[in-house]
Amino acid sequence: MNFNRHLENIEVYEAGKPIELVVREFGVAPENIIKMASNENPFGMSPRVAEAIAKNSYKGYLYPDDSMYELKDALAKKYSVDSSEIIIGAGSDQVLEFISRAKLNSSSKVLMNGVTFAMYSIYTEQMGAEIVKTDSVEHDLKQFQTLAEEHNPDIIFLCTPNNPTGDIIEKDNLLNFLETVDKNSLVVVDGAYMEYVKYSSPDSYIEPKDLIEKYPNTIYLGTFSKAFGLGGMRVGYGVAKKEIIENLYKVRPPFNITTLSLLSAIEALKDMEFVENSIESNFSEMRRFEEFADENGLDYIKSSTNFITLLLPDGYNSSNLSDKLLRVGIIIRDLKGYGLNAIRITIGKPEENSRFFEVFKKIL
Amino acid sequence: MNFNRHLENIEVYEAGKPIELVVREFGVAPENIIKMASNENPFGMSPRVAEAIAKNSYKGYLYPDDSMYELKDALAKKYSVDSSEIIIGAGSDQVLEFISRAKLNSSSKVLMNGVTFAMYSIYTEQMGAEIVKTDSVEHDLKQFQTLAEEHNPDIIFLCTPNNPTGDIIEKDNLLNFLETVDKNSLVVVDGAYMEYVKYSSPDSYIEPKDLIEKYPNTIYLGTFSKAFGLGGMRVGYGVAKKEIIENLYKVRPPFNITTLSLLSAIEALKDMEFVENSIESNFSEMRRFEEFADENGLDYIKSSTNFITLLLPDGYNSSNLSDKLLRVGIIIRDLKGYGLNAIRITIGKPEENSRFFEVFKKIL
Repeated sequence: MNFNRHLENIEVYEAGKPIELVVREFGVAPENIIKMASNENPFGMSPRVAEAIAKNSYKGYLYPDDSMYELKDALAKKYSVDSSEIIIGAGSDQVLEFISRAKLNSSSKVLMNGVTFAMYSIYTEQMGAEIVKTDSVEHDLKQFQTLAEEHNPDIIFLCTPNNPTGDIIEKDNLLNFLETVDKNSLVVVDGAYMEYVKYSSPDSYIEPKDLIEKYPNTIYLGTFSKAFGLGGMRVGYGVAKKEIIENLYKVRPPFNITTLSLLSAIEALKDMEFVENSIESNFSEMRRFEEFADENGLDYIKSSTNFITLLLPDGYNSSNLSDKLLRVGIIIRDLKGYGLNAIRITIGKPEENSRFFEVFKKIL
Repeated sequence: MNFNRHLENIEVYEAGKPIELVVREFGVAPENIIKMASNENPFGMSPRVAEAIAKNSYKGYLYPDDSMYELKDALAKKYSVDSSEIIIGAGSDQVLEFISRAKLNSSSKVLMNGVTFAMYSIYTEQMGAEIVKTDSVEHDLKQFQTLAEEHNPDIIFLCTPNNPTGDIIEKDNLLNFLETVDKNSLVVVDGAYMEYVKYSSPDSYIEPKDLIEKYPNTIYLGTFSKAFGLGGMRVGYGVAKKEIIENLYKVRPPFNITTLSLLSAIEALKDMEFVENSIESNFSEMRRFEEFADENGLDYIKSSTNFITLLLPDGYNSSNLSDKLLRVGIIIRDLKGYGLNAIRITIGKPEENSRFFEVFKKIL
């Protein structure tokens, strides 16, 4: 049977390994497994949200309010934008999908950083469009500008802080770059980890209205998966001028987030204290990772997120190390697939990090 | 800004109105609203499932096991197929999306019944493909055969029981039709309401293995949204030969159902008694709707689902009637958009149906 030909060589996204798999494949008891691979909030979700889900669990039989009126209203107030400038996705990931499907076809080009979130390439390939990448690990906006002028891309993906490296694009640099971009190129500013920047590098903290008012060809993406601790609930959003949002709505399926996800995101926005406390712990633990790296002669990329990327010296292989950790129940992310001899580790709770340091030291 | 041109005239799916909207727009108290528009199970979900969600609510911070090992294993056992022959979607709706994206392009054609589930057209339009429809309200497989020979469609959608009419395709007719179909046409057999057929018309009950073994160009779709009472959790599935499933996987985003949705579907399969009891009540209440229609001189389509379609006589307007019901808190589905002067009503609990009869009689 024939399928769309451009799908033939598509790579499938390799997700961080779930706890269930480590139990099944290596026989590690679930209570001995630490998941430091998928950048979930190690403190889970706000107790207030967990309680709201538990209390309303029976409502899962009803389709959600597909207008998402209340959630869009809460986000509109948070960001001082209009509800019509917001679209909700099953994770900001689904908004990436909407963008690709609305904007790309087989003659399109897409520009992104050399090392960046894998789904940008995958969605581009799904549309049969051409990928243009810089050769940089951290965003090099000069290269972006040169390549944008040369290729006239339909979409430009900027990820700040960048996944899987954790570094930020400085706000001034970003805004200066936007001045140079052709108005028909849609610039995606993926702020999945932006809440962490507010704490670690407030000068480079970006909100949607910093972008979309002056640069109507931009869309800002945010998510409840990271700082808000709702990774498994699948809720994210895009903020852009109404013209863009309306076009994304044309490829949005109805009921694209669950009834309990909608409710949990609305509730999560009411407990910013939980988010702030998680972030505070995150950066005090981040210091421990930096010290550990320094003490053990490992390089790392300075991170404004809830993960840290350790660059391995010659003689070490990121895949071997990741595999050894996995067998004792510590799940981290091997970055070999991103062309780096490096591992990405989600900052855990203090006791989880201590166990990581102890085990990792023995394995090194 | 330019977007894909074929999206310009796309219609957006009109979802059944949520309770929240009726509260907001008409000021009806939530406890006085009966939702009979979206074919949810009026008994909600199995208490066992609601309890499992409540107990595990805090786990929503973790991404789900993206292999969906346990759910696929349970479905594989239920249907005597292999796990590799199953793909999970956010509702069977998302599997429809995967099918369209994997199989269609702007030179494709798609064949479907004159009156059928609206998302078939919408996903086809999203891909810029051409829609060919029979002129029938109930599936006319002779017309399907003629049109298939003439147009050589890439996808043929069959919906049994059909939404929004409730009638079934007889199993023998369906199998005979499959004999005539070109092997490169993918035949989608959408069995979203199939659990109800097992009870009402067992001779036409279809399981995936009835189709895919002999006709490897078919895919069966099922859902947890209807008889299992998990509409708001967004879990459905497709069952087909591995070659087809592998191609659909190429456009599946990672983590496409939530952690709690995965858990709830696994749990729901363990309580078939709840499903059977819901279906038994459904059909005894269906008899009351049929009697009500007979007594009031209304025609209806014999239904094998959890809804009934009432055809309105001249002088009545389905949109006016739906609007009048809405203002007193009874949400039903106007079928004007499907080209029918008819309304579709989800079979409710006995007391909900009694209220519907009472109010509707006054309005008629």
